[in-house]
Amino acid sequence: MPRPEPAAADASPQATSGPQIVWQGRHLHMARDGRWEFATRPVKRPAVGIVAVTDQGALLLVEQHRPPVGGTVVELPAGLAGDLPGAEQEPLVEAARRELQEETGYEAQRWTELGMGYSSPGLTDESIMLFLAEGLRKTGPGGGDGDESIVVHEVPLPQLDGWLADRAARIDFKVYAGVYLARRGGLQ
Amino acid sequence: MPRPEPAAADASPQATSGPQIVWQGRHLHMARDGRWEFATRPVKRPAVGIVAVTDQGALLLVEQHRPPVGGTVVELPAGLAGDLPGAEQEPLVEAARRELQEETGYEAQRWTELGMGYSSPGLTDESIMLFLAEGLRKTGPGGGDGDESIVVHEVPLPQLDGWLADRAARIDFKVYAGVYLARRGGLQ
Repeated sequence: MPRPEPAAADASPQATSGPQIVWQGRHLHMARDGRWEFATRPVKRPAVGIVAVTDQGALLLVEQHRPPVGGTVVELPAGLAGDLPGAEQEPLVEAARRELQEETGYEAQRWTELGMGYSSPGLTDESIMLFLAEGLRKTGPGGGDGDESIVVHEVPLPQLDGWLADRAARIDFKVYAGVYLARRGGLQ
Repeated sequence: MPRPEPAAADASPQATSGPQIVWQGRHLHMARDGRWEFATRPVKRPAVGIVAVTDQGALLLVEQHRPPVGGTVVELPAGLAGDLPGAEQEPLVEAARRELQEETGYEAQRWTELGMGYSSPGLTDESIMLFLAEGLRKTGPGGGDGDESIVVHEVPLPQLDGWLADRAARIDFKVYAGVYLARRGGLQ
């Protein structure tokens, strides 16, 4: 649902009736609700992240340069739902399917919702649905779309904890969230 | 380290030499690096989150209203380091100690670093250090500082997975990250 987007400055912080957009970029907006400031995307849909496990029992992780943190980060394959013209209302699982294929080159036969949550609810309204993807088949090169340069790691599950520990400080917390949720659901 | 903060609009997105601050709020800024936009805090220190486990084997979780998402969220006790005047360089563990006491009323005898990571590295430079806190002793009321209204939950570890599952969709992913890291470190 679109939020109201008056451009006027919020002269009376106590007297708002919901979030006001106070700065608009191309990909990100800044909103204010009373005294609270937070980042929000123009596209009002959740993001998606994928815990993709191969038939050989390896987890697919992606690594790419992230300008905000000035270095490479290890992440789940992930992306935004509804950010393509004409597909604004795509189901979340379709967005997940698309992102998994683009970033890793894999398609999955079985999709299971692991859970929705927030990445940093004091700073942004971003919510993310995590999926478990199984029955994987490699059908493309992966590596991301034209703008992206993504390295794909296939990490055998028995070595996963150690592999992540070796890369501590360069991990997106959603990786840990996905592993927790997948194990809670029975992933060995 | 302070970033350069020119207020001028970035007329030549390709020709930047690092992030430029393009909008400044009181608690949050918006930065641009080339075509990339991201949220950043004025205080250039990591946030801290605490996996606090009582001697009776319960995890402390906090629940509070979060304006960005328009509802209550279940989170780890957490906060910012260096956001108090005169304590800009406080060690992360001191910030964690302060936040645990303010939000839950507990002090901890043993502090262990669980790991640093990113909450949403495409959208913000926010990094977070998670700590395990043990040897807890209740010494205050908790509930947050004057501005905050925080409910504290003490969730017995054997019931933790089910308790979180019952509150799915209102969980900060850092809770799952903290549980994953604490279990990887041996928490039963």
